[in-house]
Amino acid sequence: MSRFLCPAVSGLAPYTPGEQPRDMRYIKLNTNESPFPPSPKVVEALNKEERQKLRLYSDPTCKDLVDAIAKRYGLTPEQVLPGNGSDENLAFAFRAFCDDSRGPAYADITYGFYKVWAKLWELKPTVVPLREDFSLCVDDYMDLNATLFIANPNAPTGMTVPVEDIRRLLARDRDRVVVVDEAYVDFGAESCVPLLKEFDNLMVVQTFSKSRSLAGARLGFSLGSPELISDLNRIKYSFNPYNINRLSILAGKAAMEDEDYFRTCTGAIQATRAWTVEALEKLGFQVLPSQSNFLFARTDKCKGEMLYKQLKERGILVRWFDADRIRDFVRITIGAQEDMETLVATVSDLLEV
Amino acid sequence: MSRFLCPAVSGLAPYTPGEQPRDMRYIKLNTNESPFPPSPKVVEALNKEERQKLRLYSDPTCKDLVDAIAKRYGLTPEQVLPGNGSDENLAFAFRAFCDDSRGPAYADITYGFYKVWAKLWELKPTVVPLREDFSLCVDDYMDLNATLFIANPNAPTGMTVPVEDIRRLLARDRDRVVVVDEAYVDFGAESCVPLLKEFDNLMVVQTFSKSRSLAGARLGFSLGSPELISDLNRIKYSFNPYNINRLSILAGKAAMEDEDYFRTCTGAIQATRAWTVEALEKLGFQVLPSQSNFLFARTDKCKGEMLYKQLKERGILVRWFDADRIRDFVRITIGAQEDMETLVATVSDLLEV
Repeated sequence: MSRFLCPAVSGLAPYTPGEQPRDMRYIKLNTNESPFPPSPKVVEALNKEERQKLRLYSDPTCKDLVDAIAKRYGLTPEQVLPGNGSDENLAFAFRAFCDDSRGPAYADITYGFYKVWAKLWELKPTVVPLREDFSLCVDDYMDLNATLFIANPNAPTGMTVPVEDIRRLLARDRDRVVVVDEAYVDFGAESCVPLLKEFDNLMVVQTFSKSRSLAGARLGFSLGSPELISDLNRIKYSFNPYNINRLSILAGKAAMEDEDYFRTCTGAIQATRAWTVEALEKLGFQVLPSQSNFLFARTDKCKGEMLYKQLKERGILVRWFDADRIRDFVRITIGAQEDMETLVATVSDLLEV
Repeated sequence: MSRFLCPAVSGLAPYTPGEQPRDMRYIKLNTNESPFPPSPKVVEALNKEERQKLRLYSDPTCKDLVDAIAKRYGLTPEQVLPGNGSDENLAFAFRAFCDDSRGPAYADITYGFYKVWAKLWELKPTVVPLREDFSLCVDDYMDLNATLFIANPNAPTGMTVPVEDIRRLLARDRDRVVVVDEAYVDFGAESCVPLLKEFDNLMVVQTFSKSRSLAGARLGFSLGSPELISDLNRIKYSFNPYNINRLSILAGKAAMEDEDYFRTCTGAIQATRAWTVEALEKLGFQVLPSQSNFLFARTDKCKGEMLYKQLKERGILVRWFDADRIRDFVRITIGAQEDMETLVATVSDLLEV
């Protein structure tokens, strides 16, 4: 820290990303990436001609990408805003829809970045504990004077809130924004996107990082009413108008248009997930019911931290969170079937089951 | 605007980027892009194998890119922070080094985004008028209790402040940060980078957008003391840790390492600039002394707005700013030699010189 840093900033508690080892030595099941490469159409779209055009600024409106997303979800382009990763979209929402008179509210166990953004924008959050079984009960949020941030499926549990419950939240107070973070929705969960027809206080955030195999392109998007999207644009154009590079715009469009590839990949991950759940349960694990591309699991036979460390020693990276209530668990990304077979064999060996 | 938007945000005055026409019909001299494609080594670096790796997150530390930048400028990696465009670097600096007790200070005529970031972070700026001849006199800043933002060369004038003068500013108050925005430094101006050895209150910001032909990759970087860079990292990791995508990291590294190509391109632009200045002066223009890849010029024969509009009708885009003191001028990017010849012929025709 320098002597120049503003006091308010010195109090920030930055997010710790999962390990990103640079040597590719590991079976990487720690940051919820896809085991599949991007659609071949993505790889083709970034051709030599397009790479040479990098001398020119990207389109700040991202029109081609916005149109592709709007078409895929049956929305108008005015209802779509891409971001430099869904993290950027979420950071903008904290700025646009929260202040001293209405802070953010989110679960005690959820995406770890919510609390970081709250600090970044100097907001006072309301933290609502998940129930004992890690379920999120919307009754706990019903009367909060706050902008609600709900990861659905939740991270790192993988568990879902029924869309019907989110509808109740939206209907309860139409002057309150509900941000539904659907980073993991494409692996079998129900999306809130259809509710956009009824509710202008709904903001849905999705990402290309998981189900569309583009974590390295940094691309997410917000969906909402034209007015709400216009608010987010006000932040974007006050922060970094050219926030998405030329190649990621092209990649996103190609990925969004290749529905077959998307279905094949997300289907395969769901099948592998089912296999992995069964295998881990046979080894005595408790596995939370996941609709995402990861599992949150624990066993009485080994502490979470120990399991994480021992797997790492054996060349498999999973994620462990040193946090109350979930210290016993590890989060395991659903990778390729053969990777999960290696994981299960390694765990079995470790626990001497 | 939605009814949900926080009052403080509704007061933001977002930046207006230059026109980015999507149809490529224009000779585009309005957003200071390079007329040259990126280095062939950049185009090669983004090969098929790397495009397939987009399924994986980028390295949040951007190590390969940081190392290449550090090596090029004779610094340590701890002195370098890449950003999603230099705009992001600058936005972070406003957050890290300004607050109620020490606001930002900048010129009345300079990069138009400074005032936008001041509003975004709810800061009270000190706006210091340039002198009558558009020069920036450091005496006007010497005793300001503020974090200083100095574009050098300045935009949209193209004029420089001597590095010796910046040194005086740095030495005057070693507890005050001076941010020198060197977006346009590579076209013949002197850089403040050597002063980093002496001053830990200096932050230099540069970009790949202009001199390295990568506007579309969105890549800039900050240089400073390890402590100051660590402060900026605190903001980055509280906002968007994976802020740079995989391909831009690769592109930036390849561009930074191709020194010959960089020298060839920036040399050609300087030669074309000299030719263009002479030609415009022959047509009766006043051209401010530019060390950048653009010219700021005016003529008594035609108002700035009219010149902008008439050039646009004839297929040439330049930039006009509807702002006090500079309403008579247009800003003209130095493009390829043949584009500038077309510009000069068109202007000559328009003005019937």
